[in-house]
Amino acid sequence: MENKFIQWKKQCLTKIDYSRKGTVDEDISHIVSVLNNSDNYFTTSSCSGRIILTDGVSDNPDVQKRNCSWLFVTHKKCLIRDLVSGLEKSSGDAVLKFEPFLLHVQCRQLEDGQLLHSVAINSGFRNSGFTVGKKGKIIMAVRSTHGLEVPLSHKGQVLVKEDYIHFLVEVANQKMEENLKRISRFYKCLQTALLPVESQSLCKFETEEKPVYKRRKKRGQNSACQDSRDISPIELEDCLDSGVDLFT
Amino acid sequence: MENKFIQWKKQCLTKIDYSRKGTVDEDISHIVSVLNNSDNYFTTSSCSGRIILTDGVSDNPDVQKRNCSWLFVTHKKCLIRDLVSGLEKSSGDAVLKFEPFLLHVQCRQLEDGQLLHSVAINSGFRNSGFTVGKKGKIIMAVRSTHGLEVPLSHKGQVLVKEDYIHFLVEVANQKMEENLKRISRFYKCLQTALLPVESQSLCKFETEEKPVYKRRKKRGQNSACQDSRDISPIELEDCLDSGVDLFT
Repeated sequence: MENKFIQWKKQCLTKIDYSRKGTVDEDISHIVSVLNNSDNYFTTSSCSGRIILTDGVSDNPDVQKRNCSWLFVTHKKCLIRDLVSGLEKSSGDAVLKFEPFLLHVQCRQLEDGQLLHSVAINSGFRNSGFTVGKKGKIIMAVRSTHGLEVPLSHKGQVLVKEDYIHFLVEVANQKMEENLKRISRFYKCLQTALLPVESQSLCKFETEEKPVYKRRKKRGQNSACQDSRDISPIELEDCLDSGVDLFT
Repeated sequence: MENKFIQWKKQCLTKIDYSRKGTVDEDISHIVSVLNNSDNYFTTSSCSGRIILTDGVSDNPDVQKRNCSWLFVTHKKCLIRDLVSGLEKSSGDAVLKFEPFLLHVQCRQLEDGQLLHSVAINSGFRNSGFTVGKKGKIIMAVRSTHGLEVPLSHKGQVLVKEDYIHFLVEVANQKMEENLKRISRFYKCLQTALLPVESQSLCKFETEEKPVYKRRKKRGQNSACQDSRDISPIELEDCLDSGVDLFT
Protein backbone atom coordinates (compact mmCIF):
# COMPACT_ATOMS: atom_id res chain seq x y z
CA MET A 1 0.00 0.00 0.00
CA GLU A 2 2.80 2.41 1.04
CA ASN A 3 4.85 1.52 -2.06
CA LYS A 4 1.75 1.82 -4.23
CA PHE A 5 1.24 5.42 -3.08
CA ILE A 6 4.84 6.34 -3.91
CA GLN A 7 4.46 4.65 -7.32
CA TRP A 8 1.11 6.44 -8.03
CA LYS A 9 2.66 9.76 -7.01
CA LYS A 10 5.63 9.24 -9.31
CA GLN A 11 3.40 8.20 -12.25
CA CYS A 12 1.03 11.15 -11.71
CA LEU A 13 3.67 13.85 -11.35
CA THR A 14 5.66 12.69 -14.39
CA LYS A 15 2.56 12.51 -16.63
CA ILE A 16 1.82 15.06 -19.34
CA ASP A 17 -0.70 17.73 -18.28
CA TYR A 18 -3.74 17.03 -20.47
CA SER A 19 -5.66 20.16 -19.50
CA ARG A 20 -6.46 22.88 -22.07
CA LYS A 21 -4.15 25.27 -20.22
CA GLY A 22 -1.41 22.69 -19.70
CA THR A 23 0.02 24.30 -16.56
CA VAL A 24 -0.95 24.75 -12.89
CA ASP A 25 -2.68 28.11 -12.28
CA GLU A 26 -0.40 30.85 -10.93
CA ASP A 27 -2.55 31.66 -7.85
CA ILE A 28 -2.35 28.12 -6.47
CA SER A 29 1.11 26.97 -7.60
CA HIS A 30 2.38 27.46 -3.99
CA ILE A 31 -0.38 25.18 -2.65
CA VAL A 32 0.25 22.55 -5.35
CA SER A 33 3.98 22.50 -4.57
CA VAL A 34 3.50 22.33 -0.77
CA LEU A 35 1.29 19.27 -1.31
CA ASN A 36 3.48 17.66 -3.97
CA ASN A 37 6.59 18.21 -1.83
CA SER A 38 4.96 16.56 1.20
CA ASP A 39 5.26 12.80 1.77
CA ASN A 40 1.53 12.20 2.22
CA TYR A 41 -0.11 14.07 -0.67
CA PHE A 42 -0.01 14.84 -4.36
CA THR A 43 -2.41 16.83 -6.54
CA THR A 44 -4.22 15.10 -9.41
CA SER A 45 -6.09 18.13 -10.79
CA SER A 46 -6.51 21.78 -9.89
CA CYS A 47 -8.05 25.09 -10.90
CA SER A 48 -7.53 28.36 -9.02
CA GLY A 49 -11.02 29.51 -10.01
CA ARG A 50 -12.30 31.08 -13.20
CA ILE A 51 -14.91 33.30 -14.78
CA ILE A 52 -16.12 31.56 -17.92
CA LEU A 53 -18.65 32.32 -20.65
CA THR A 54 -19.88 29.15 -22.35
CA ASP A 55 -22.09 28.81 -25.42
CA GLY A 56 -24.15 25.64 -25.63
CA VAL A 57 -27.52 24.02 -26.09
CA SER A 58 -29.69 24.32 -22.99
CA ASP A 59 -32.53 22.12 -24.29
CA ASN A 60 -30.91 19.09 -22.71
CA PRO A 61 -28.87 20.10 -19.65
CA ASP A 62 -27.58 16.56 -19.38
CA VAL A 63 -25.50 16.81 -22.56
CA GLN A 64 -24.77 20.54 -22.37
CA LYS A 65 -21.11 20.00 -21.47
CA ARG A 66 -20.44 18.02 -24.62
CA ASN A 67 -21.99 20.57 -27.00
CA CYS A 68 -20.58 23.59 -25.29
CA SER A 69 -17.84 25.94 -26.49
CA TRP A 70 -15.97 28.59 -24.51
CA LEU A 71 -16.54 32.18 -25.58
CA PHE A 72 -14.30 33.62 -22.89
CA VAL A 73 -12.36 32.44 -19.83
CA THR A 74 -10.16 34.14 -17.25
CA HIS A 75 -8.53 33.07 -13.99
CA LYS A 76 -8.31 36.72 -12.91
CA LYS A 77 -10.98 39.40 -12.56
CA CYS A 78 -12.87 40.00 -15.81
CA LEU A 79 -13.45 43.17 -17.78
CA ILE A 80 -16.85 44.29 -19.10
CA ARG A 81 -15.49 44.41 -22.68
CA ASP A 82 -14.35 40.75 -22.46
CA LEU A 83 -17.84 39.65 -21.54
CA VAL A 84 -19.56 41.93 -24.08
CA SER A 85 -17.32 40.80 -26.98
CA GLY A 86 -17.70 37.17 -25.85
CA LEU A 87 -21.49 37.53 -25.94
CA GLU A 88 -21.34 38.95 -29.49
CA LYS A 89 -19.94 35.58 -30.62
CA SER A 90 -22.80 33.58 -29.04
CA SER A 91 -24.81 31.49 -31.49
CA GLY A 92 -26.49 29.26 -28.89
CA ASP A 93 -27.25 29.70 -25.18
CA ALA A 94 -24.47 31.64 -23.47
CA VAL A 95 -24.04 31.18 -19.72
CA LEU A 96 -21.72 33.19 -17.47
CA LYS A 97 -20.22 31.10 -14.68
CA PHE A 98 -17.95 31.77 -11.78
CA GLU A 99 -16.26 28.49 -10.87
CA PRO A 100 -14.29 28.62 -7.60
CA PHE A 101 -10.99 27.00 -6.59
CA LEU A 102 -11.06 23.24 -7.15
CA LEU A 103 -8.36 20.84 -6.07
CA HIS A 104 -8.11 17.05 -6.19
CA VAL A 105 -5.46 15.63 -3.89
CA GLN A 106 -4.47 11.99 -3.51
CA CYS A 107 -3.68 11.17 0.12
CA ARG A 108 -1.40 8.45 1.49
CA GLN A 109 -3.63 7.40 4.40
CA LEU A 110 -7.23 8.05 5.44
CA GLU A 111 -5.95 10.23 8.32
CA ASP A 112 -4.14 12.41 5.78
CA GLY A 113 -7.46 12.81 3.96
CA GLN A 114 -9.22 13.69 7.23
CA LEU A 115 -6.57 16.29 8.04
CA LEU A 116 -6.84 17.87 4.58
CA HIS A 117 -10.65 17.80 4.84
CA SER A 118 -10.60 19.71 8.13
CA VAL A 119 -8.23 22.26 6.55
CA ALA A 120 -10.62 22.64 3.59
CA ILE A 121 -13.78 23.02 5.70
CA ASN A 122 -12.09 25.42 8.12
CA SER A 123 -10.94 27.57 5.18
CA GLY A 124 -14.50 27.87 3.84
CA PHE A 125 -14.49 25.04 1.24
CA ARG A 126 -17.63 23.42 2.58
CA ASN A 127 -18.40 21.07 -0.30
CA SER A 128 -15.12 19.23 0.16
CA GLY A 129 -15.10 15.48 0.56
CA PHE A 130 -13.13 12.42 -0.38
CA THR A 131 -13.46 9.20 -2.29
CA VAL A 132 -11.78 5.88 -1.60
CA GLY A 133 -11.37 3.60 -4.62
CA LYS A 134 -11.23 -0.17 -4.58
CA LYS A 135 -7.49 0.00 -5.31
CA GLY A 136 -7.11 2.12 -2.16
CA LYS A 137 -6.70 5.50 -3.84
CA ILE A 138 -7.85 8.19 -1.39
CA ILE A 139 -8.72 11.41 -3.22
CA MET A 140 -9.72 14.59 -1.37
CA ALA A 141 -11.70 17.07 -3.44
CA VAL A 142 -11.48 20.65 -2.13
CA ARG A 143 -14.71 22.31 -3.29
CA SER A 144 -16.45 25.57 -2.50
CA THR A 145 -20.18 26.34 -2.46
CA HIS A 146 -19.34 29.70 -3.98
CA GLY A 147 -20.76 29.96 -7.50
CA LEU A 148 -22.56 31.97 -10.14
CA GLU A 149 -24.41 30.62 -13.18
CA VAL A 150 -26.29 33.15 -15.27
CA PRO A 151 -27.92 32.43 -18.66
CA LEU A 152 -27.28 35.47 -20.89
CA SER A 153 -28.38 34.51 -24.39
CA HIS A 154 -30.80 32.10 -26.08
CA LYS A 155 -30.18 30.91 -29.65
CA GLY A 156 -27.63 33.70 -30.06
CA GLN A 157 -30.00 36.45 -28.84
CA VAL A 158 -28.70 38.37 -25.80
CA LEU A 159 -31.45 38.49 -23.14
CA VAL A 160 -30.16 41.23 -20.82
CA LYS A 161 -29.16 44.91 -21.03
CA GLU A 162 -25.58 46.17 -20.77
CA ASP A 163 -26.11 47.68 -17.29
CA TYR A 164 -27.01 44.20 -16.02
CA ILE A 165 -23.79 42.87 -17.56
CA HIS A 166 -21.86 45.62 -15.73
CA PHE A 167 -23.48 44.51 -12.47
CA LEU A 168 -22.71 40.84 -13.18
CA VAL A 169 -19.04 41.62 -13.83
CA GLU A 170 -18.91 43.30 -10.40
CA VAL A 171 -20.54 40.29 -8.74
CA ALA A 172 -18.24 37.79 -10.54
CA ASN A 173 -15.15 39.83 -9.65
CA GLN A 174 -16.25 40.08 -6.03
CA LYS A 175 -16.59 36.29 -5.96
CA MET A 176 -13.13 35.96 -7.51
CA GLU A 177 -11.75 38.21 -4.76
CA GLU A 178 -13.45 36.16 -2.03
CA ASN A 179 -12.13 33.01 -3.74
CA LEU A 180 -8.55 34.34 -3.48
CA LYS A 181 -9.11 35.11 0.24
CA ARG A 182 -10.24 31.53 0.79
CA ILE A 183 -7.25 30.20 -1.17
CA SER A 184 -4.84 32.15 1.04
CA ARG A 185 -6.74 30.99 4.16
CA PHE A 186 -6.48 27.42 2.85
CA TYR A 187 -2.73 27.84 2.29
CA LYS A 188 -2.20 29.22 5.83
CA CYS A 189 -4.31 26.45 7.38
CA LEU A 190 -2.53 23.82 5.27
CA GLN A 191 0.90 25.02 6.40
CA THR A 192 -0.33 24.99 10.02
CA ALA A 193 -1.83 21.51 9.64
CA LEU A 194 1.46 20.16 8.28
CA LEU A 195 3.29 21.49 11.34
CA PRO A 196 3.68 19.44 14.53
CA VAL A 197 0.46 19.58 16.64
CA GLU A 198 1.92 21.85 19.37
CA SER A 199 2.47 24.68 16.83
CA GLN A 200 -1.05 24.59 15.40
CA SER A 201 -2.66 27.56 17.16
CA LEU A 202 -1.49 29.91 14.37
CA CYS A 203 -4.43 29.36 12.04
CA LYS A 204 -7.08 31.87 13.14
CA PHE A 205 -10.56 32.45 11.75
CA GLU A 206 -11.99 35.62 10.31
CA THR A 207 -14.61 36.62 12.87
CA GLU A 208 -17.60 36.39 10.52
CA GLU A 209 -16.94 32.69 10.00
CA LYS A 210 -17.56 31.72 13.62
CA PRO A 211 -21.29 32.43 13.99
CA VAL A 212 -22.00 30.50 10.78
CA TYR A 213 -20.47 27.40 12.33
CA LYS A 214 -22.13 28.07 15.69
CA ARG A 215 -25.56 28.46 14.11
CA ARG A 216 -25.19 25.29 12.04
CA LYS A 217 -23.97 23.29 15.02
CA LYS A 218 -27.27 24.11 16.78
CA ARG A 219 -29.45 22.70 13.99
CA GLY A 220 -29.42 19.07 15.13
CA GLN A 221 -28.50 16.11 12.98
CA ASN A 222 -31.57 14.81 11.20
CA SER A 223 -32.29 17.93 9.23
CA ALA A 224 -34.55 17.54 6.19
CA CYS A 225 -34.26 20.29 3.59
CA GLN A 226 -31.90 22.33 5.69
CA ASP A 227 -31.24 25.90 4.53
CA SER A 228 -27.52 25.53 5.28
CA ARG A 229 -27.06 23.10 2.40
CA ASP A 230 -23.34 23.54 2.09
CA ILE A 231 -22.34 21.43 5.10
CA SER A 232 -24.23 18.96 7.24
CA PRO A 233 -24.02 19.33 11.01
CA ILE A 234 -22.32 15.95 11.25
CA GLU A 235 -19.68 16.90 8.68
CA LEU A 236 -19.09 20.05 10.71
CA GLU A 237 -18.95 18.20 14.02
CA ASP A 238 -16.50 15.81 12.41
CA CYS A 239 -14.34 18.70 11.32
CA LEU A 240 -14.45 20.26 14.73
CA ASP A 241 -13.11 17.11 16.32
CA SER A 242 -11.03 15.79 13.44
CA GLY A 243 -7.32 16.11 12.71
CA VAL A 244 -6.46 19.59 13.92
CA ASP A 245 -8.95 21.89 15.57
CA LEU A 246 -8.27 25.15 13.76
CA PHE A 247 -10.92 27.05 15.71
CA THR A 248 -8.59 27.75 18.62
CA MET B 1 -17.68 0.56 16.40
CA GLU B 2 -20.60 -1.60 15.21
CA ASN B 3 -22.60 -0.78 18.34
CA LYS B 4 -21.72 2.88 17.97
CA PHE B 5 -23.25 2.96 14.47
CA ILE B 6 -26.50 1.41 15.73
CA GLN B 7 -26.55 3.90 18.61
CA TRP B 8 -25.88 6.89 16.27
CA LYS B 9 -28.61 5.69 13.92
CA LYS B 10 -31.12 5.37 16.75
CA GLN B 11 -30.22 8.83 18.13
CA CYS B 12 -30.41 10.45 14.70
CA LEU B 13 -33.71 8.93 13.60
CA THR B 14 -35.47 9.70 16.88
CA LYS B 15 -34.28 13.33 16.91
CA ILE B 16 -36.59 16.26 16.15
CA ASP B 17 -36.28 17.53 12.56
CA TYR B 18 -34.77 21.01 12.98
CA SER B 19 -35.22 22.05 9.35
CA ARG B 20 -37.54 24.91 8.36
CA LYS B 21 -39.82 22.45 6.58
CA GLY B 22 -39.63 19.86 9.35
CA THR B 23 -40.31 16.87 7.08
CA VAL B 24 -38.48 14.85 4.41
CA ASP B 25 -39.31 16.07 0.88
CA GLU B 26 -41.97 14.03 -0.93
CA ASP B 27 -39.84 13.31 -4.05
CA ILE B 28 -37.11 11.56 -2.05
CA SER B 29 -39.05 9.96 0.82
CA HIS B 30 -38.68 6.54 -0.93
CA ILE B 31 -34.86 6.96 -1.09
CA VAL B 32 -34.70 8.12 2.54
CA SER B 33 -36.73 5.10 3.70
CA VAL B 34 -34.72 2.57 1.63
CA LEU B 35 -31.55 3.91 3.28
CA ASN B 36 -33.01 4.18 6.78
CA ASN B 37 -34.46 0.68 6.51
CA SER B 38 -31.09 -0.78 5.48
CA ASP B 39 -28.62 -2.02 8.11
CA ASN B 40 -25.65 -0.03 6.78
CA TYR B 41 -27.02 3.48 6.23
CA PHE B 42 -29.12 6.28 7.65
CA THR B 43 -29.78 9.78 6.34
CA THR B 44 -28.69 12.79 8.39
CA SER B 45 -30.04 15.52 6.10
CA SER B 46 -31.76 15.74 2.74
CA CYS B 47 -33.34 18.05 0.19
CA SER B 48 -35.02 16.86 -3.03
CA GLY B 49 -33.95 20.05 -4.80
CA ARG B 50 -35.47 23.51 -4.79
CA ILE B 51 -35.92 26.74 -6.66
CA ILE B 52 -35.31 29.57 -4.22
CA LEU B 53 -35.33 33.36 -4.37
CA THR B 54 -33.17 34.88 -1.62
CA ASP B 55 -32.81 38.52 -0.65
CA GLY B 56 -29.50 39.48 0.94
CA VAL B 57 -26.48 41.74 0.99
CA SER B 58 -24.02 40.87 -1.76
CA ASP B 59 -21.30 43.32 -0.68
CA ASN B 60 -19.71 40.59 1.39
CA PRO B 61 -20.39 37.18 -0.13
CA ASP B 62 -18.82 35.55 2.90
CA VAL B 63 -21.63 36.63 5.24
CA GLN B 64 -24.44 36.63 2.67
CA LYS B 65 -26.05 33.49 4.11
CA ARG B 66 -26.43 35.07 7.54
CA ASN B 67 -28.15 38.25 6.30
CA CYS B 68 -30.31 36.55 3.76
CA SER B 69 -34.08 36.05 3.78
CA TRP B 70 -36.19 33.82 1.52
CA LEU B 71 -38.60 35.62 -0.79
CA PHE B 72 -39.85 32.40 -2.36
CA VAL B 73 -39.06 28.67 -2.31
CA THR B 74 -40.50 25.61 -4.02
CA HIS B 75 -39.49 21.95 -4.29
CA LYS B 76 -41.57 21.64 -7.47
CA LYS B 77 -41.49 23.57 -10.75
CA CYS B 78 -41.99 27.30 -10.23
CA LEU B 79 -44.52 29.68 -11.77
CA ILE B 80 -43.63 33.05 -13.29
CA ARG B 81 -46.03 34.85 -10.92
CA ASP B 82 -44.29 33.31 -7.86
CA LEU B 83 -40.96 34.72 -8.97
CA VAL B 84 -42.39 38.11 -10.02
CA SER B 85 -44.29 38.59 -6.74
CA GLY B 86 -41.22 37.41 -4.80
CA LEU B 87 -39.08 39.99 -6.57
CA GLU B 88 -41.55 42.76 -5.69
CA LYS B 89 -40.73 42.11 -2.01
CA SER B 90 -36.95 42.46 -2.55
CA SER B 91 -35.32 45.23 -0.53
CA GLY B 92 -31.72 44.04 -0.96
CA ASP B 93 -29.99 41.87 -3.56
CA ALA B 94 -32.33 39.11 -4.75
CA VAL B 95 -30.75 35.98 -6.24
CA LEU B 96 -32.60 33.15 -7.96
CA LYS B 97 -31.05 29.75 -7.28
CA PHE B 98 -31.74 26.25 -8.37
CA GLU B 99 -30.30 23.93 -5.73
CA PRO B 100 -30.29 20.26 -6.76
CA PHE B 101 -30.92 17.09 -4.73
CA LEU B 102 -28.67 16.92 -1.67
CA LEU B 103 -28.39 13.97 0.66
CA HIS B 104 -26.13 13.27 3.63
CA VAL B 105 -25.96 9.61 4.57
CA GLN B 106 -24.07 8.08 7.47
CA CYS B 107 -22.54 4.73 6.50
CA ARG B 108 -21.67 1.78 8.73
CA GLN B 109 -18.35 0.90 7.06
CA LEU B 110 -16.04 2.57 4.54
CA GLU B 111 -17.08 -0.05 1.93
CA ASP B 112 -20.71 1.04 2.39
CA GLY B 113 -19.60 4.61 1.70
CA GLN B 114 -17.68 3.47 -1.41
CA LEU B 115 -20.73 1.60 -2.69
CA LEU B 116 -23.01 4.60 -2.14
CA HIS B 117 -20.42 6.87 -3.79
CA SER B 118 -20.33 4.74 -6.93
CA VAL B 119 -24.15 4.79 -7.02
CA ALA B 120 -24.10 8.60 -6.72
CA ILE B 121 -21.44 9.15 -9.42
CA ASN B 122 -23.09 6.67 -11.77
CA SER B 123 -26.43 8.45 -11.35
CA GLY B 124 -24.91 11.80 -12.33
CA PHE B 125 -24.17 13.25 -8.85
CA ARG B 126 -20.57 14.02 -9.65
CA ASN B 127 -19.73 16.28 -6.69
CA SER B 128 -20.42 13.50 -4.22
CA GLY B 129 -17.85 12.57 -1.63
CA PHE B 130 -17.52 11.47 1.94
CA THR B 131 -16.01 12.56 5.20
CA VAL B 132 -14.65 10.42 7.99
CA GLY B 133 -14.68 12.02 11.43
CA LYS B 134 -12.31 11.29 14.27
CA LYS B 135 -15.10 9.41 16.07
CA GLY B 136 -15.40 7.18 12.99
CA LYS B 137 -18.56 8.71 11.54
CA ILE B 138 -18.56 8.08 7.79
CA ILE B 139 -20.86 10.54 5.99
CA MET B 140 -21.51 10.34 2.24
CA ALA B 141 -22.72 13.59 0.69
CA VAL B 142 -24.63 13.06 -2.56
CA ARG B 143 -24.13 16.29 -4.52
CA SER B 144 -24.81 17.37 -8.08
CA THR B 145 -22.93 19.89 -10.21
CA HIS B 146 -26.27 21.02 -11.55
CA GLY B 147 -27.01 24.60 -10.47
CA LEU B 148 -28.26 28.07 -11.30
CA GLU B 149 -27.46 31.29 -9.44
CA VAL B 150 -28.76 34.49 -10.99
CA PRO B 151 -28.65 37.92 -9.33
CA LEU B 152 -31.96 39.68 -10.12
CA SER B 153 -32.07 42.83 -8.00
CA HIS B 154 -29.65 45.23 -6.33
CA LYS B 155 -30.75 47.29 -3.30
CA GLY B 156 -34.35 46.39 -4.09
CA GLN B 157 -34.14 47.49 -7.73
CA VAL B 158 -34.96 44.72 -10.24
CA LEU B 159 -32.19 44.57 -12.88
CA VAL B 160 -33.85 42.47 -15.60
CA LYS B 161 -36.95 42.60 -17.79
CA GLU B 162 -39.94 40.28 -17.40
CA ASP B 163 -39.17 38.30 -20.59
CA TYR B 164 -35.80 37.37 -19.06
CA ILE B 165 -37.62 36.20 -15.93
CA HIS B 166 -39.89 34.05 -18.14
CA PHE B 167 -36.79 32.49 -19.73
CA LEU B 168 -35.18 31.90 -16.31
CA VAL B 169 -38.29 30.13 -15.04
CA GLU B 170 -38.06 27.77 -18.05
CA VAL B 171 -34.37 27.11 -17.36
CA ALA B 172 -34.95 26.54 -13.62
CA ASN B 173 -37.89 24.20 -14.31
CA GLN B 174 -35.84 22.28 -16.89
CA LYS B 175 -33.13 21.81 -14.26
CA MET B 176 -35.75 20.66 -11.76
CA GLU B 177 -36.97 18.09 -14.32
CA GLU B 178 -33.42 16.86 -14.95
CA ASN B 179 -32.91 16.72 -11.17
CA LEU B 180 -35.94 14.43 -10.81
CA LYS B 181 -34.56 12.16 -13.60
CA ARG B 182 -31.27 11.89 -11.69
CA ILE B 183 -33.13 11.18 -8.44
CA SER B 184 -35.00 8.29 -10.07
CA ARG B 185 -31.74 7.03 -11.65
CA PHE B 186 -30.15 7.24 -8.17
CA TYR B 187 -33.05 5.29 -6.67
CA LYS B 188 -32.80 2.55 -9.33
CA CYS B 189 -28.99 2.33 -8.95
CA LEU B 190 -29.33 2.28 -5.15
CA GLN B 191 -31.82 -0.59 -5.26
CA THR B 192 -29.51 -2.46 -7.66
CA ALA B 193 -26.45 -1.79 -5.49
CA LEU B 194 -28.25 -3.15 -2.43
CA LEU B 195 -28.97 -6.40 -4.29
CA PRO B 196 -26.53 -9.34 -4.30
CA VAL B 197 -23.69 -8.73 -6.85
CA GLU B 198 -24.94 -11.31 -9.43
CA SER B 199 -28.20 -9.32 -9.92
CA GLN B 200 -26.50 -5.97 -10.53
CA SER B 201 -26.61 -5.69 -14.32
CA LEU B 202 -30.04 -3.98 -14.15
CA CYS B 203 -28.76 -0.43 -13.67
CA LYS B 204 -28.18 0.89 -17.22
CA PHE B 205 -26.87 4.27 -18.35
CA GLU B 206 -28.60 6.76 -20.57
CA THR B 207 -26.46 6.67 -23.72
CA GLU B 208 -25.37 10.32 -23.60
CA GLU B 209 -23.66 9.70 -20.27
CA LYS B 210 -21.12 7.28 -21.67
CA PRO B 211 -19.05 9.53 -23.97
CA VAL B 212 -18.68 12.06 -21.16
CA TYR B 213 -17.06 9.39 -19.01
CA LYS B 214 -15.02 8.05 -21.93
CA ARG B 215 -13.71 11.51 -22.82
CA ARG B 216 -12.82 12.27 -19.23
CA LYS B 217 -11.09 8.93 -18.79
CA LYS B 218 -8.74 9.88 -21.67
CA ARG B 219 -7.67 13.15 -20.06
CA GLY B 220 -4.91 11.65 -17.92
CA GLN B 221 -4.49 12.15 -14.21
CA ASN B 222 -2.44 15.26 -13.60
CA SER B 223 -4.87 17.68 -15.15
CA ALA B 224 -4.48 21.34 -14.21
CA CYS B 225 -7.55 23.54 -14.74
CA GLN B 226 -9.49 20.78 -16.43
CA ASP B 227 -12.71 21.83 -18.17
CA SER B 228 -14.52 18.81 -16.75
CA ARG B 229 -14.40 20.23 -13.24
CA ASP B 230 -17.19 18.12 -11.84
CA ILE B 231 -15.24 14.89 -11.52
CA SER B 232 -11.53 14.12 -11.54
CA PRO B 233 -10.33 11.24 -13.72
CA ILE B 234 -9.12 9.41 -10.61
CA GLU B 235 -12.51 9.75 -8.89
CA LEU B 236 -14.04 8.36 -12.06
CA GLU B 237 -11.56 5.52 -12.34
CA ASP B 238 -12.25 4.73 -8.70
CA CYS B 239 -15.95 4.62 -9.38
CA LEU B 240 -15.45 2.43 -12.39
CA ASP B 241 -13.63 -0.15 -10.32
CA SER B 242 -15.30 0.44 -6.98
CA GLY B 243 -18.13 -1.39 -5.25
CA VAL B 244 -20.42 -2.27 -8.14
CA ASP B 245 -19.58 -1.50 -11.73
CA LEU B 246 -22.87 -0.08 -12.95
CA PHE B 247 -21.58 0.52 -16.48
CA THR B 248 -22.30 -3.02 -17.61
